[in-house]
Amino acid sequence: MAGKISYIFLCMNVIPLLAAAASQACSAQSDAKCSQTGEWNGEFFPGIPKIKYEGPYTKNKFAYKSYNAEEVILGKKMKDWLRFSVAFWHTFRGTGVDPFGAPTIFWPWEDGTNSIAMAKRRMRANFEFINKLGVDRWCFHDRDIAPEGKTLQETNSNLDEVVKLAKTLQGNNIRPLWGTAQLFMHPRYMHGAATSSELGVYVYAAAQVKKAMEVTHYLGGENYVFWGGREGYQTLLNTDMEFELDHMAKFLEAAAAYKRKIGFTGTLLIEPKPQEPTKHQYDWDAATTTNFLRKYGLIGDFKLNIECNHATLSGHSCHHDVETARINGLLGNIDANSGDAQTGWDTDQFLTDTREATMIMLSVIENGH
Amino acid sequence: MAGKISYIFLCMNVIPLLAAAASQACSAQSDAKCSQTGEWNGEFFPGIPKIKYEGPYTKNKFAYKSYNAEEVILGKKMKDWLRFSVAFWHTFRGTGVDPFGAPTIFWPWEDGTNSIAMAKRRMRANFEFINKLGVDRWCFHDRDIAPEGKTLQETNSNLDEVVKLAKTLQGNNIRPLWGTAQLFMHPRYMHGAATSSELGVYVYAAAQVKKAMEVTHYLGGENYVFWGGREGYQTLLNTDMEFELDHMAKFLEAAAAYKRKIGFTGTLLIEPKPQEPTKHQYDWDAATTTNFLRKYGLIGDFKLNIECNHATLSGHSCHHDVETARINGLLGNIDANSGDAQTGWDTDQFLTDTREATMIMLSVIENGH
Amino acid sequence: MAGKISYIFLCMNVIPLLAAAASQACSAQSDAKCSQTGEWNGEFFPGIPKIKYEGPYTKNKFAYKSYNAEEVILGKKMKDWLRFSVAFWHTFRGTGVDPFGAPTIFWPWEDGTNSIAMAKRRMRANFEFINKLGVDRWCFHDRDIAPEGKTLQETNSNLDEVVKLAKTLQGNNIRPLWGTAQLFMHPRYMHGAATSSELGVYVYAAAQVKKAMEVTHYLGGENYVFWGGREGYQTLLNTDMEFELDHMAKFLEAAAAYKRKIGFTGTLLIEPKPQEPTKHQYDWDAATTTNFLRKYGLIGDFKLNIECNHATLSGHSCHHDVETARINGLLGNIDANSGDAQTGWDTDQFLTDTREATMIMLSVIENGH
Amino acid sequence: MAGKISYIFLCMNVIPLLAAAASQACSAQSDAKCSQTGEWNGEFFPGIPKIKYEGPYTKNKFAYKSYNAEEVILGKKMKDWLRFSVAFWHTFRGTGVDPFGAPTIFWPWEDGTNSIAMAKRRMRANFEFINKLGVDRWCFHDRDIAPEGKTLQETNSNLDEVVKLAKTLQGNNIRPLWGTAQLFMHPRYMHGAATSSELGVYVYAAAQVKKAMEVTHYLGGENYVFWGGREGYQTLLNTDMEFELDHMAKFLEAAAAYKRKIGFTGTLLIEPKPQEPTKHQYDWDAATTTNFLRKYGLIGDFKLNIECNHATLSGHSCHHDVETARINGLLGNIDANSGDAQTGWDTDQFLTDTREATMIMLSVIENGH
Repeated sequence: MAGKISYIFLCMNVIPLLAAAASQACSAQSDAKCSQTGEWNGEFFPGIPKIKYEGPYTKNKFAYKSYNAEEVILGKKMKDWLRFSVAFWHTFRGTGVDPFGAPTIFWPWEDGTNSIAMAKRRMRANFEFINKLGVDRWCFHDRDIAPEGKTLQETNSNLDEVVKLAKTLQGNNIRPLWGTAQLFMHPRYMHGAATSSELGVYVYAAAQVKKAMEVTHYLGGENYVFWGGREGYQTLLNTDMEFELDHMAKFLEAAAAYKRKIGFTGTLLIEPKPQEPTKHQYDWDAATTTNFLRKYGLIGDFKLNIECNHATLSGHSCHHDVETARINGLLGNIDANSGDAQTGWDTDQFLTDTREATMIMLSVIENGH
Repeated sequence: MAGKISYIFLCMNVIPLLAAAASQACSAQSDAKCSQTGEWNGEFFPGIPKIKYEGPYTKNKFAYKSYNAEEVILGKKMKDWLRFSVAFWHTFRGTGVDPFGAPTIFWPWEDGTNSIAMAKRRMRANFEFINKLGVDRWCFHDRDIAPEGKTLQETNSNLDEVVKLAKTLQGNNIRPLWGTAQLFMHPRYMHGAATSSELGVYVYAAAQVKKAMEVTHYLGGENYVFWGGREGYQTLLNTDMEFELDHMAKFLEAAAAYKRKIGFTGTLLIEPKPQEPTKHQYDWDAATTTNFLRKYGLIGDFKLNIECNHATLSGHSCHHDVETARINGLLGNIDANSGDAQTGWDTDQFLTDTREATMIMLSVIENGH
Repeated sequence: MAGKISYIFLCMNVIPLLAAAASQACSAQSDAKCSQTGEWNGEFFPGIPKIKYEGPYTKNKFAYKSYNAEEVILGKKMKDWLRFSVAFWHTFRGTGVDPFGAPTIFWPWEDGTNSIAMAKRRMRANFEFINKLGVDRWCFHDRDIAPEGKTLQETNSNLDEVVKLAKTLQGNNIRPLWGTAQLFMHPRYMHGAATSSELGVYVYAAAQVKKAMEVTHYLGGENYVFWGGREGYQTLLNTDMEFELDHMAKFLEAAAAYKRKIGFTGTLLIEPKPQEPTKHQYDWDAATTTNFLRKYGLIGDFKLNIECNHATLSGHSCHHDVETARINGLLGNIDANSGDAQTGWDTDQFLTDTREATMIMLSVIENGH
Repeated sequence: MAGKISYIFLCMNVIPLLAAAASQACSAQSDAKCSQTGEWNGEFFPGIPKIKYEGPYTKNKFAYKSYNAEEVILGKKMKDWLRFSVAFWHTFRGTGVDPFGAPTIFWPWEDGTNSIAMAKRRMRANFEFINKLGVDRWCFHDRDIAPEGKTLQETNSNLDEVVKLAKTLQGNNIRPLWGTAQLFMHPRYMHGAATSSELGVYVYAAAQVKKAMEVTHYLGGENYVFWGGREGYQTLLNTDMEFELDHMAKFLEAAAAYKRKIGFTGTLLIEPKPQEPTKHQYDWDAATTTNFLRKYGLIGDFKLNIECNHATLSGHSCHHDVETARINGLLGNIDANSGDAQTGWDTDQFLTDTREATMIMLSVIENGH
């Protein structure tokens, strides 16, 4: 069971909006990185070697001091306890925006477009990054890795083209920790996806999940994640919570049925978060989500993906929500990030507090036996 | 169903510790209220008439301006929509202490003791108060209405003596909205009652619930409440949450069995609260408690008693938690109080915000049909 | 003094990022609103009449029910107690984005550019809106009303062109409640403006304030506002708070000197906010900002602009911060908005709670005598 | 200056209410600890030796692992960087009560009374404890060390008797880090002391401070502390904040004048706290209190005593408030405790987080140069 516990590696609280700044990638002004075909030549991260373990006293900035992948602890390799995964959107689509600020992150390979060519270039950067880190998992949203087209058909075709490249770049050792459908950024999802009051939106979301699950399966993904950031409400005055939850349950039921139909054996995970962007998200915390799964008979099909900063926003310690998932038999995955005890929103920082990290590992180890 | 929704009438965030101040009740220095036998003569609230509805423009301070008990609204009398209940502990055992302050409330009839005579005198004050308000429900903890003795037998005997008087004073029209056992104030419960790590404490708590349920039944109570203020933890480092929840489930299972055994037909209610006094209470909010009931197969036997200030402390609006209880089929009762949006503890104030009260009534009405 | 208290009228927590969606304004597909020159014809808000007071029982949706501008209350006209002001950025630059979602607001007159022509078209929409509301104040950031150019000179020239139009559209009765410089959205300000660690950024910010103050003066503005959203820190590990506050004081001192130099007689206002976007903003609340003004001898030159939702985020009621400003002699202006007691970020909603609004008016009236 | 920074050693969030439990101290049932005169014989903490530094690898539970008093770090002995002080009330008057629970701490030497004999016995326990810890500072409230009498005269006489013993027990090396007057527990202070609406209460508080300052001076105290737990409000609807702050300033002015009159050369310290017990305390945080001192011209006479858990309750990190005090030249003392990031009240725990402790020491060291 412990093998199911993994960590998302790179987290910043930024969502890729289009970088508005004029980009110089592969233009006349840029350096030698662009070929005549406009494609990126050579490394994306030149001068950065493959990161290795060198122990706590190394002076090398590009080395692991504590993480020694092959070292056996409590009968298991460290890489099996801590299955780091590169989050594509944080690492390659984050632009540094916040609600009061324009983008501040400009990768040299970005050309300011959301084209398929750009998507494929990013995917190559992603795998160079993964290989240099020496990890073997990554995770993604459909819309982050390939651009939306004018129709669903075109959108799916775009996705297929990029995923095909990803499959090649994965090789034999790398695979997705999970894939997911981005059901919150497009305006159609402003009132939810599985809980939208518009039938067409509900159906579109279902089609998007169907496709995202197919490509996750194709890429050998271990899990498929549902984060319902807009499955909630701004006010109960205009929301029938029971009706919306019934719809969400039907949606997830259908997803589980489709999983079986296509033979995808990965785990379906729900990631709780109390709020943001909505005032109140239905999947508030581990206990609330567990109650939902029990009520609608979905326990056998779903587990939970606990994100630490979401747990603290809901008033719990991360350890509490991990334990709550564990003792309900639903601990599927952990996004072991960290928030700021003095701010009321998701800061999605790296977990650098050894006390909290130790508490979380207690549950992971307990779960492993 | 709507008949099940009631309101606790008098709420102050004070718990009765022994009033240390020297009391003058019925002593040589006191006025004519004491008879030669040391008992209270005449009214406890002299000069206060029976409160009646006089409409919004009355100048009479001792009149209802909006609450017109017999007025029919949406097919039901106002007194049936709003079943006010006098909370014995807030009204008669509150002393005005806070964590930094000594008692400030000194009723003239209190003599500074926790004797049975004092308990009976208070009970008479209680029923004078209820009758003058013109309401027909009250609620109590076992230890608030009668003193603890040296043995369980003596304690139960004390309780019987006071309850017998209460039964008489109730007459034909008044009855408890609910009774409960106080399982948090005595030092034996410092680490919980149904989740205590001491077997003897668990058993003592069970015996206390057994007796409290019997007297609630004897008094014609409509509900029996469980508030697990100390069923939780200060830190997970020394707490096995799963083990403790298993124990709590067994405890509640036994209580439900005993209810059936004695023929008590009232509803068993669990009152969620996120924390205080514990850092983290197991019955965090409506959804968490519902998940617990589902997990342990207790859904048929228990409903929820939603307290507004507990809901807001857990990060929800009161309306949210009332709705959550309702759509899970578990809305049993409401303690329609209010907190302070700028403080992080239970202030247990009267609900005076008409916007919030309106939202809550929406759920109550929805529940009633 | 009371005449100094005003209200910002339209508030949504959205900051104008470029609307990425392809706009159809004045294109072949659009309707008859565009002339052959590509300019907007006719009304921006067709079918919306000038809003008038019709009393509480009107059925007309486009009427004031309570706000009767000319009605005298406590010796002053309602329009002088409540000096509503249209916030340009909320009303005309808000796009409906949030940290997880793309724009959802698309005005028909927007063409997807940030051109001067577009800026002027928006300004005409702004004044149609103001006139239809029947209010006589507006407020703006420099960058919201005119686009940034390639150089400061070009940027200022853009601003001049739009401001000239605004001056004409203002007529004799309308004027800015306040103007301000937007010192937080451009990447150069990512570490602050007056507290930036880069000299060039500090100087650029000063040049921007100089120009924004000039145009506010030119337009007859009553106040000039400083909101230091990025004057703060993410962590004190890399921040010398004392050094940065010294710099901020020098910056404000220079602004006050320039105000006197150009003969601008409006009030300089600082708007406190505890955090967001920074983890900790220096102008945390009214008391903190007052201490800053006292320490650096700036009391005579500055007053405070209290925003209710900022007050509640800093742990106070709005009334508390308004009172704190008032009793320090610094109540300059109020942004009487409202937040959500259950979320930890700025939601910037309309103030619809009559209890809170009444509390605030108590301070405004007290301030008026 | 760094020598001024000290730490309060023992903190629990409990305030001494009278222990109601029947005590067995020195009764027939007790063991050999009581002499025939009813006095305590032998050690209060038998079996506990004087605590010494034995280094990080010692197996001795009664040893310091890190604190090596005489070790010089950055030019100063560790005992001069970290001037631990035993808080009398936490250590000897704490009973383990919380708002929902009766006392749980019963020292064998407590006899259930608040007599002078009991006060003196406790004082001897205090100095045995201090000597065994090997620290040389303690701190106290007047009412914690000696019982209140029927008149002020009797109360002061009680205090003198206990203080005289303390003076003897202090010897040459031990002295108070600070003394203070307890102006919050007695019912007379329910609406404040220096901000009470009753003249008699204001005067009584002044008399109490006068005496407490005298005994602090007599004992050689280094500081005198003001914590205004009830100097604040429950609602602004019945509170004139400006008026009350004026009164508080006069009160503190008089205290500073009296300090000079009696030749007390210790520092006067104000300890900010945002709330609890009041909804809103006037000394909210370091910046608010500094503004108050500036407004009323009290800067030269007062510094701040920063308590970490108070800082976090006001929305700041502890480091932030320590830095705020420091850069305003007002860092006088630190109560380096810790709260719980998930609870909304003062838990007053030991600071065991090395990251936070390190941040605080950065300010202390910066303050030392």
